[in-house]
Amino acid sequence: MDIEYVLPQDIEARSMEIIEAELGEIILPEKVAPIVKRVIHTSADFEYARTLCFSEDAVSSALQALQQGATIVTDTNMGLMGINSAGVQQLGCQKYCFMADAEVAKKAKEKGTTRAMAAIDKACHITTPLIFAIGNAPTALLRLEEHIKCGRIKPALIIGVPVGFVNVVAAKERIMQCGVPFIVARGRKGGSPIAAAICNALIYMLTRKTK
Amino acid sequence: MDIEYVLPQDIEARSMEIIEAELGEIILPEKVAPIVKRVIHTSADFEYARTLCFSEDAVSSALQALQQGATIVTDTNMGLMGINSAGVQQLGCQKYCFMADAEVAKKAKEKGTTRAMAAIDKACHITTPLIFAIGNAPTALLRLEEHIKCGRIKPALIIGVPVGFVNVVAAKERIMQCGVPFIVARGRKGGSPIAAAICNALIYMLTRKTK
Repeated sequence: MDIEYVLPQDIEARSMEIIEAELGEIILPEKVAPIVKRVIHTSADFEYARTLCFSEDAVSSALQALQQGATIVTDTNMGLMGINSAGVQQLGCQKYCFMADAEVAKKAKEKGTTRAMAAIDKACHITTPLIFAIGNAPTALLRLEEHIKCGRIKPALIIGVPVGFVNVVAAKERIMQCGVPFIVARGRKGGSPIAAAICNALIYMLTRKTK
Repeated sequence: MDIEYVLPQDIEARSMEIIEAELGEIILPEKVAPIVKRVIHTSADFEYARTLCFSEDAVSSALQALQQGATIVTDTNMGLMGINSAGVQQLGCQKYCFMADAEVAKKAKEKGTTRAMAAIDKACHITTPLIFAIGNAPTALLRLEEHIKCGRIKPALIIGVPVGFVNVVAAKERIMQCGVPFIVARGRKGGSPIAAAICNALIYMLTRKTK
């Protein structure tokens, strides 16, 4: 099978051309198109063109938060690592994952919760605008739902894209009913690279000339 | 939508039950079943039951290497992070990613290659049995093909699961023709979590009672 000669710096643009061509007649709203295309670029899975759901205010709220020095909180270190550090820094934002935090592990044990839940509790104390990028733990979404419903936090965006078989579908459906801006991959699919890809698409809207 | 009450420590087993039930009449060969199921567990994508290809000797060669203190080399730090550190340590093995290595960046610039290629060149100097877990860069697979064909290395296993649109399909097809043990996800899909899941499935075959 033949190899196509594409310079390393041109691979992303060439990939996006292929994605656009194969999306064909699917018309994506202009505001969300760069996000959907970046997720497909990360996964090679066109199903996301159908399953990604956006609240009306998701993109505008996220961009405003990123312009105000938001903190992005992930539920895996893999997800954290996938978020473009240079972009985060350029915007004066921060990114954290508290899953490996000793204090979080201790609190989870004391309270009998998952570490993902204890990590969310810790993030509630952050005072900048908050973007949650949840690619793994449905329990993180369920905990966010609790904190939102009792008025403890009001995130600028919840990216709800855990992957898996136990409570993943339900947790995603519930977070879409909380009245906060969301980007959710309906169904079982998702993952840390998907969460990171959505963050990066938003970051690039503010930091790159081409998306 | 209702939440199913499953203890955190039981989520994986419950997920595997669901996967087995949904695989239904698809019969997986006993040797590879734990790998296919773990990849589906990571991706929620049953397509892998059809696209994962194993050379006859893939599992036996990999297990032997892991019992002889193999080095697992990944092409992303995300992939590296996803490989179970306790398992690697218990087996007396090592895991590395050279992508962020200053020397690798310098060599790539000098030679006009991708960093993924320079990282493979560096890994060729490792003297333990080698397992390559490539979830991102097709150029890493193409470089491995070169080194194998000229007799410079003979890896115990190549996990070839890059994801993407440019040269990904071709690079995977070519690595399957090199005469070395392989596990490849045919087509465009894959990714760092898939590469890590395959490593973990192999590690758990040696370190866990239940797979």
